[in-house]
Amino acid sequence: MNKPVKEMDSLQNERAGRKRIAIVGIGLMGGSLAIQLHEKKLASRLVGVDTHADHAHKALELELVDEVMNLDEAIKVSDVIILAIPVDKLVDLLPLVLDKIENQIVLDLGSTKSQLIEVIKNHPKRGRYVATHPMWGTEYSGPQAAVRGAFENRALIICNAAESDADALEWVRGMYSKIGMRLLEMEARAHDLHAAYVSHISHITSFALANTVLQKEKEDNAIFELASAGFESTVRLAKSNPAMWVPIFMQNKENVLDVLKEHIAQLTRFKESIEKDDKEYLTKLIEEANRIRRIIK
Amino acid sequence: MNKPVKEMDSLQNERAGRKRIAIVGIGLMGGSLAIQLHEKKLASRLVGVDTHADHAHKALELELVDEVMNLDEAIKVSDVIILAIPVDKLVDLLPLVLDKIENQIVLDLGSTKSQLIEVIKNHPKRGRYVATHPMWGTEYSGPQAAVRGAFENRALIICNAAESDADALEWVRGMYSKIGMRLLEMEARAHDLHAAYVSHISHITSFALANTVLQKEKEDNAIFELASAGFESTVRLAKSNPAMWVPIFMQNKENVLDVLKEHIAQLTRFKESIEKDDKEYLTKLIEEANRIRRIIK
Repeated sequence: MNKPVKEMDSLQNERAGRKRIAIVGIGLMGGSLAIQLHEKKLASRLVGVDTHADHAHKALELELVDEVMNLDEAIKVSDVIILAIPVDKLVDLLPLVLDKIENQIVLDLGSTKSQLIEVIKNHPKRGRYVATHPMWGTEYSGPQAAVRGAFENRALIICNAAESDADALEWVRGMYSKIGMRLLEMEARAHDLHAAYVSHISHITSFALANTVLQKEKEDNAIFELASAGFESTVRLAKSNPAMWVPIFMQNKENVLDVLKEHIAQLTRFKESIEKDDKEYLTKLIEEANRIRRIIK
Repeated sequence: MNKPVKEMDSLQNERAGRKRIAIVGIGLMGGSLAIQLHEKKLASRLVGVDTHADHAHKALELELVDEVMNLDEAIKVSDVIILAIPVDKLVDLLPLVLDKIENQIVLDLGSTKSQLIEVIKNHPKRGRYVATHPMWGTEYSGPQAAVRGAFENRALIICNAAESDADALEWVRGMYSKIGMRLLEMEARAHDLHAAYVSHISHITSFALANTVLQKEKEDNAIFELASAGFESTVRLAKSNPAMWVPIFMQNKENVLDVLKEHIAQLTRFKESIEKDDKEYLTKLIEEANRIRRIIK
């Protein structure tokens, strides 16, 4: 009752499981997570780190984070460090962050995992790191793209959980559960394979579709005026940021190429059946595709 | 004041521009249009015609139409006949309907136009027919797929308007305007070209993507659990009905093949740049695709 206010706060936060959290990269993913951490009262203090000064400034202005620091300062004052940066930057930064921490928890939100986990597998602080991939995103980027209610009801994959310390894993699981995600665990290799099928190929398809239409349809105005909801839904991912996606495709090269070759083969079947007026085979191809109804909604 | 109720109704309907309307094919498109015709008070009486007895029954049960008749009866009691059937059925049925009408207005909702307009171009009743294509749809089919608020804020294309009678054209324009569509006019050939780019190719892409993932991903459960919003949005059109889409691809064969070949070429560029680790070209390809931001939203 007579304890100083500061100490009271700290005690209450500890009891509530609240942590001092640093988010490195306050863009779409980091910013959207920041909103959830605030709303679900998971953070007692939220520090933003961003090498782009304008992003950091915008994140403060939007009240996504409580303050902005450089990486070293942020690591010192935080219990948890969340890395929300492109996967090529992750493989460089994660080992450096593990070098600098004492006993803090470190996690990332990257879309590829094999290479990243390989890079730090023998690091003395390996146990403090939890590899996570929230299956959520939009085609927009930057702090102004951050949205309320992100991640909810989506899958969260934790990779190679056995290599993380029990306390780190427990807190990370609790964080994502409170945000409303469905938790799954798998090995990094399996993750990268599945991610190629259910996420990476969709982006390539969408980029290529946009380029096809922009190439063939000489009248921008016609696209603008005639675009149906169907076109918009297949092409919307084509707005996605190359700084995020080029490194994903490169790091998951083998799986992405494998699924991309199959996709080209499937499109070629459509082409040939139309060329040959083979309505029967075309119908069969579409009926096969309709089987996706079993799986999606 | 002393007029019989029946005559009063008829007079009021006439003043309000209401028509007795028959919809042939009460599925997704016809059913959704029926809801709009009711809500916007465009129909004084809505008759459904469907060769599938279960569709007709379901349409009545859902109150999409006031009554069900066979085609000949429906033509006799209606001022307007709307054909909402697959495009292969349209080329057979439209000439027969024009044979049977007196002075009624006939329109269709088909996704391809060149072949259809060619078939009836010399018909003595050509002027009574208005060729329309509302750029709206969903991946579902049948009367139970009919939805409220369909067509609103979407483009409506009228093809070869000069070949339709002025009064028929005026009423059809008024109908779509009241539903909230943006009216455009173009020749059938231009329509089919643009439709291949902004609608037909999206469906082929989506069908082929579903087949790719169903082929490569042996674990249905993994697709189900991991599927992100991005995957769902690119693959949702793959649920679309082959009875509707096979005839569209066949009737628009030349344009569809042209754009499909370009799409395969674009995907091949992505494949080659990943194979060669050519990050620079891959970035360029994605930046080009990002130009779709100018056009879509």
